[in-house]
Amino acid sequence: MTAFTTLLRDSWRRNDSLLCVGLDPDVKRIPEHLGRGPAAIGAFCRAIVDATADLVCAFKPQIAYFHAERAEAELEELIAHIHARHPGVPVILDAKRGDIGSTAEQYAREAFERYQADAVTVSPFLGRDSIIPYTSYRERGVIVLCRTSNPGGSDMQFLEVDGPAGRELIYQRIARVVAQDWNSNGNCALVVGATFPRELKDVRAIVGDLPLLVPGIGAQGGDIEATVRAGQSADGTGLIINSGRAILYASGGTDFAAAARAAAQATRDEINRFRT
Amino acid sequence: MTAFTTLLRDSWRRNDSLLCVGLDPDVKRIPEHLGRGPAAIGAFCRAIVDATADLVCAFKPQIAYFHAERAEAELEELIAHIHARHPGVPVILDAKRGDIGSTAEQYAREAFERYQADAVTVSPFLGRDSIIPYTSYRERGVIVLCRTSNPGGSDMQFLEVDGPAGRELIYQRIARVVAQDWNSNGNCALVVGATFPRELKDVRAIVGDLPLLVPGIGAQGGDIEATVRAGQSADGTGLIINSGRAILYASGGTDFAAAARAAAQATRDEINRFRT
Repeated sequence: MTAFTTLLRDSWRRNDSLLCVGLDPDVKRIPEHLGRGPAAIGAFCRAIVDATADLVCAFKPQIAYFHAERAEAELEELIAHIHARHPGVPVILDAKRGDIGSTAEQYAREAFERYQADAVTVSPFLGRDSIIPYTSYRERGVIVLCRTSNPGGSDMQFLEVDGPAGRELIYQRIARVVAQDWNSNGNCALVVGATFPRELKDVRAIVGDLPLLVPGIGAQGGDIEATVRAGQSADGTGLIINSGRAILYASGGTDFAAAARAAAQATRDEINRFRT
Repeated sequence: MTAFTTLLRDSWRRNDSLLCVGLDPDVKRIPEHLGRGPAAIGAFCRAIVDATADLVCAFKPQIAYFHAERAEAELEELIAHIHARHPGVPVILDAKRGDIGSTAEQYAREAFERYQADAVTVSPFLGRDSIIPYTSYRERGVIVLCRTSNPGGSDMQFLEVDGPAGRELIYQRIARVVAQDWNSNGNCALVVGATFPRELKDVRAIVGDLPLLVPGIGAQGGDIEATVRAGQSADGTGLIINSGRAILYASGGTDFAAAARAAAQATRDEINRFRT
């Protein structure tokens, strides 16, 4: 199979897009005519994917929205559908796993073997040995939480600690350690929220051209211009800018897929206005 | 329903036990005569539960071992079986979730509504607002990672930061913040590994009689005497001491359930030797 970083670089270029569509199918917001339950979740996500696949650099299904509704089979089918119908578009399974090594091996099997995701999000809280079971899959991407988009993200990530070159904040330390150490197989990336463009700029300076997954534009209020200017790498790529709700629920009617396409196109184009 | 903390207090007393059996069904280690696949996982765990339920204060299924094998239905059935056949024994779903509020709501629904767990383990890395969706279920327990049992746990948890009364380590800060702030509904607990008895003692001093879930005895090498002496509360309870592999795989033959019972009984009794 093709490595995640290669897939990503190719799809940035092919679709001229840094946009990632977040597949967070909230059963309370899926258009009524699709019905309810796991089958409706599957049909909804498939329609969104088919309407936007040429506009995105990646898709990011959030696993909790599927598991809370017993839609595991639909998640497997959705990812298989993306691989079959839209080959080359990487799938990031957003799961934010974090557990000791023996359990992390099971989570890695779930993400990479059961669901066939190209990449998975993980938490750094349990340290280096909790990440190795994921990075050992050399062709898959491992996207480590660094600076999350929510208000409480600061509770821990903004604490100041001693670093080798003076004081540093926890999120800076994570960025440094991932780039310098955990990324020895070249398959790591980081999550940095769009709600903190200053920190995004900071992380970019620390990690060189490591890919950054950026949630928080759209419903969470992050600014696109500030995000792109702060986060892009030297060649105007380097970002996976996620938008979920603003695209998924652009319309609640039978035209939801066309409305999602229009919203995705507008977001991609706005992102591209600010790329170097 | 009965609150998690009440269930726990009652089962500490009723079974005279601080032992929790961790249900981590590794398909490569399940006795061969049970077969393979989800049905074998279900049968194995049910037999372990029925053989040990009067010796434990809780059961702790680890969700990744089930999800990696498509055994969601078996996990639902297992927890329903515990509630029906062994009422009063709380079930802790070990999932170590950590995500922003809107997604945390889905994970909380998965743990508490789909699986009907009495408590769930969560990560503090995303801060206060990522925990509220769980603590809002006032009758359920929310067990926050504080000092994990693995070597890499020190990478972040052992960093030193400024606190209100001078310098403190991250795990001490988590203990303090959970006990003083996040526990406003009285349903929080903490995870502190048995591999670090000094830190366990430290956390006990910070949090009063908050329950502590302690993994790491048995296969991971934590010492029972040191754990009990360092971690018990003033009345000789306060601990949920987890043992998984040493009990589950005490025998790989057809006598596995009886062997698990003998191992659980020996562990419970050794724990009790050191209680005040």
